Amino acid sequence: MSQRPVPPRGMRDLLPTDVRLRMALLTTLQRVYESYGFDQIETPALEEIDRLLDSEAGDNEKLIYKVMRRGLDLTGAHKTESELVDLGLRYDLTVPLARFYATHSALLPKPFRAIQTGPVWRAERPQKGRYRQFVQCDIDVIGDAGTDAEVDLVCATAEALRAVEVGEFTVRVNDRRLLQALVKSAGFSFEDTPAVLVIIDKLDKIGFESVEAELSQISAEPASALIKQLAAVVGSLTADEVAETLGNAAPSTAIADLRSICAGVVAVLPWVNIRVDATLVRGQGYYTGSIFEVEHDDLSGSLAGGGRYDKMIAKLSGVDVAAVGFSIGFERLFDIVSQRAATPNGQARVVLLYSDETDYISVATAAQGLRNANFSVRPEQSAKNRTSQLTRLERAGFTHWTELRNGSLNEPQQFAQ
Amino acid sequence: MSQRPVPPRGMRDLLPTDVRLRMALLTTLQRVYESYGFDQIETPALEEIDRLLDSEAGDNEKLIYKVMRRGLDLTGAHKTESELVDLGLRYDLTVPLARFYATHSALLPKPFRAIQTGPVWRAERPQKGRYRQFVQCDIDVIGDAGTDAEVDLVCATAEALRAVEVGEFTVRVNDRRLLQALVKSAGFSFEDTPAVLVIIDKLDKIGFESVEAELSQISAEPASALIKQLAAVVGSLTADEVAETLGNAAPSTAIADLRSICAGVVAVLPWVNIRVDATLVRGQGYYTGSIFEVEHDDLSGSLAGGGRYDKMIAKLSGVDVAAVGFSIGFERLFDIVSQRAATPNGQARVVLLYSDETDYISVATAAQGLRNANFSVRPEQSAKNRTSQLTRLERAGFTHWTELRNGSLNEPQQFAQ
Repeated sequence: MSQRPVPPRGMRDLLPTDVRLRMALLTTLQRVYESYGFDQIETPALEEIDRLLDSEAGDNEKLIYKVMRRGLDLTGAHKTESELVDLGLRYDLTVPLARFYATHSALLPKPFRAIQTGPVWRAERPQKGRYRQFVQCDIDVIGDAGTDAEVDLVCATAEALRAVEVGEFTVRVNDRRLLQALVKSAGFSFEDTPAVLVIIDKLDKIGFESVEAELSQISAEPASALIKQLAAVVGSLTADEVAETLGNAAPSTAIADLRSICAGVVAVLPWVNIRVDATLVRGQGYYTGSIFEVEHDDLSGSLAGGGRYDKMIAKLSGVDVAAVGFSIGFERLFDIVSQRAATPNGQARVVLLYSDETDYISVATAAQGLRNANFSVRPEQSAKNRTSQLTRLERAGFTHWTELRNGSLNEPQQFAQ
Repeated sequence: MSQRPVPPRGMRDLLPTDVRLRMALLTTLQRVYESYGFDQIETPALEEIDRLLDSEAGDNEKLIYKVMRRGLDLTGAHKTESELVDLGLRYDLTVPLARFYATHSALLPKPFRAIQTGPVWRAERPQKGRYRQFVQCDIDVIGDAGTDAEVDLVCATAEALRAVEVGEFTVRVNDRRLLQALVKSAGFSFEDTPAVLVIIDKLDKIGFESVEAELSQISAEPASALIKQLAAVVGSLTADEVAETLGNAAPSTAIADLRSICAGVVAVLPWVNIRVDATLVRGQGYYTGSIFEVEHDDLSGSLAGGGRYDKMIAKLSGVDVAAVGFSIGFERLFDIVSQRAATPNGQARVVLLYSDETDYISVATAAQGLRNANFSVRPEQSAKNRTSQLTRLERAGFTHWTELRNGSLNEPQQFAQ
């Protein structure tokens, strides 16, 4: 145990001001998602370790917090990991959702629209702004193979982001089938496609030249052909422009889906800035069709991301069903909004000052009167230095202060804005 | 991994109807607590294992989910538990609160009023209505040695329970110092006191005769004397009645505190049914003064419980500070309220039916119109059997339904109440 009492490495406590803003944000996101007919579910923090390890989550599997079996006798022979461990903390909300769907599908509407907001755990190397316990906000549509689901997901996410006043953002959409077709028509083999996509995913960070250099290490001629196609299509911002630029290389199903997603979103929410980006990859290996991402000026990475993962639930649970999801990076959202917002909600919070000679019954009943007038009230003894006390309280987010003096209560005064 | 995909043993998923009610309950409790000047904090789910094991939590320590160190090499020599394990999932919110206070005390107001609502984990033997992950709702006042803190805690808890419409309840209060004085004056030794209190705690369950039998196994004469005192005082419902019944055996400090707690609560909230019960023990060993419990007709155990634990934070963190808390058993509260409440909130939820020939853009824009009129909207394709579809939707908690037909939207119809 560390000498100073602190949270475990890479984890953090949340102080009242942060909790207040986080709760307000979460509540707003949930309210918008619900207005789109999505339903909240919850799963336990723990899942069986084999399920977490079987989920093809790549690097995330190495980051799992593993839980020891209870009642183990450690005095006996040497134990293997599977003898020691039976459970693990979830590292995302998608594996639990797939398991949830397999458990309860008989009870759920078809298609099922799920909201999940909750903590996940990854033992990543701690660094600034990245924590080992963090919150994800996912919406998913299970059992709808058409683009209706994508329209609802993008609209709900865009409305949710607008509701928390995050500022300007852009939705980029693409389709894995389009990417795969480009990779294939450039001359790469089917087996190389995943590795090629991982390299293209670095375009935003390292640029065309470095991406071509890396692709050439797989195969030189296809690398050059692919880079030409990508450079040509980077300015095509609609499905029609992409189709025109790429010609036969673009599969008509993917183009049709991109067209109907963009048209649907703009028909419902004309203010949404949505564009096709044929170079968008998204990291995860499990995507099968549409992919999308929200871009925000305050971030180098994405604010939200998602896509279609039609094969994944079958792999995890044996139930073969279409699925598509969109996830807001809650910690990133919090970082952006906390820089902007001063007061997360309109609730008036008053400090009730009293001297140490005052009987607490009169303090508590005066506080009750203020609560009945819709204040949140914190009773606090008057400090000798009134000015520094009030400054501290204003910084702590109180909107008003008042004083109980000789049994009578002053009108609450608002702190200067 | 179990054949059927299910949650880990003793844990459960929460379906939308339950999540909706749980969120409404939690939000209401938090709102009332905040109106009493309490502030929400959050700590990580994991704490260092040594801190959890050092906390004198008795049986709870055996129930800890222990987490393996990351990057362990299991191929080497046999490992001891402390070589294998560095973290554990919290089994209550009090140990993390004590650690939190020690970490951040310089930043916190004095006294500090904390709200904590969140999951805890205990590997108890699974049984009906008891789960291995469950939610606790705690409020605590740290740094206030007087009964002001108790008045605020009891009032905030009572108001919170009234706000969630739990029905009639009674607050019972007692003081550990009163119990200890009775045990001593009956003739038990100081060393026997904890064991004696554990036995008295069973009064509600097994009655006076069985309690006396168990006490006699420690020491016969004191057992008989103590039972006489307890039987005499059981009908004394105020501090004054208790003082009169017990005479010199009752310490004046405890009586004075009980008097001021009850007077304070009734002055603020005259409707609260509060009474002294000199036989109330509360299980935990760490209580040092006042203890309290909420009794509800629908439960055999208590709905909420708490007390003063002035030495505990010093033991856990080295910071010597007074502390007192009150905790609502959220799962019990949920059980009571879910039996009573049909609809947890007033939000109108409408199902928008459409035929599979309808263009989804017209469905999505019609849904947007309903959202603008403050409905939560779920679009769903019309089933062949309209009646059974509507019955299912009404059961799922929808308040209205409507249909998009030939491009025009019917007025939403309310389901029969």
